Amino acid sequence: MNEVVVLTPERILEVTEDVLRRYGLAKATVVDVARALDVSHGSVYRHFPSKASLREAVAKRWLDRLSAPLLKIAEASGPAPARLEKWLRTMFSIKHKRLGDDPEMFATYLALAREACKSVNCHKDCLVDQIALILSDGVKQGAFEVADVKVTARAIFDATSRFHHPAHAEEWNEPSAPARIDALLALLLKGLETPRKR
Amino acid sequence: MNEVVVLTPERILEVTEDVLRRYGLAKATVVDVARALDVSHGSVYRHFPSKASLREAVAKRWLDRLSAPLLKIAEASGPAPARLEKWLRTMFSIKHKRLGDDPEMFATYLALAREACKSVNCHKDCLVDQIALILSDGVKQGAFEVADVKVTARAIFDATSRFHHPAHAEEWNEPSAPARIDALLALLLKGLETPRKR
Repeated sequence: MNEVVVLTPERILEVTEDVLRRYGLAKATVVDVARALDVSHGSVYRHFPSKASLREAVAKRWLDRLSAPLLKIAEASGPAPARLEKWLRTMFSIKHKRLGDDPEMFATYLALAREACKSVNCHKDCLVDQIALILSDGVKQGAFEVADVKVTARAIFDATSRFHHPAHAEEWNEPSAPARIDALLALLLKGLETPRKR
Repeated sequence: MNEVVVLTPERILEVTEDVLRRYGLAKATVVDVARALDVSHGSVYRHFPSKASLREAVAKRWLDRLSAPLLKIAEASGPAPARLEKWLRTMFSIKHKRLGDDPEMFATYLALAREACKSVNCHKDCLVDQIALILSDGVKQGAFEVADVKVTARAIFDATSRFHHPAHAEEWNEPSAPARIDALLALLLKGLETPRKR
């Protein structure tokens, strides 16, 4: 019984992820992807004109899944300080969980980050924009005092790198990590606060 | 004309640094060090009982040279906020300069950091202690409000990782780096400040 499966970009990306998990970024080829799909590599190239474009697309898909729950927090209502803390803690825990659940794709992501791949850069910018959105709300609410929302959002992203940048992944399970995260977040939130009126 | 050179630990470490620069951490052996010194490897082992102990010692020597100018700033007098900012900027510039001037030893240091070598851990602790010293002064001066000086010192060390941890070295020469450092330091200093009385 032959079933005709339509070759969609989504189907190609799904299978590419599996292939990357199995072979790793360095070894996986478009031919491997085509073989896993049981199609010619020409069929894959029809959707993704190069190995690089396929890589970009698969990274984007993986990263979009990662940032979707964060966008919900950024766009929610409620007091900005609590929202910022929740957003940062959720980002840390999503990344930590990915590292545990999907180490092969995590390594692939790290390699793509090192190549300064476009999807990874967009992903970072998009996360900084989400922080900026929360900061703007905080300023409107009178809770935050921030001169330049975009610049400060980037500073918060930079300041928390130790707990979200894959280069530091080995430290995330250290026993001292939770207390260090608490101290860091307290310091950053205090730095954003509008000075208390007396 | 033969000159008798006494084989001191300092002389061994000096030559080991050269050997590491030439061959890299993975390939350099105690035999290479002995050959460069024109002594038997037994003579080296008399001072450093293992390759690991020699490695530790050479890392310690390199790192001590790096942290000496920082200690001077930490132990100086004057207003703590300016001193903390100067200390952090000096740490960044020392590390950036080392990366430019001595990339081979920098790579060795990164490899040792990944192995969680004792000297590198001590070095980190020692830097955090220096930050803590400045924070204590700031609390005494009434400039900083800090609940736990040691914990907050570690938070500042973590928060600035992007600009001193060798894993991020590739970003240090990006055009955006100076402005990002300014924004980060402003945020951290504001987070330490005693709330303004009105």
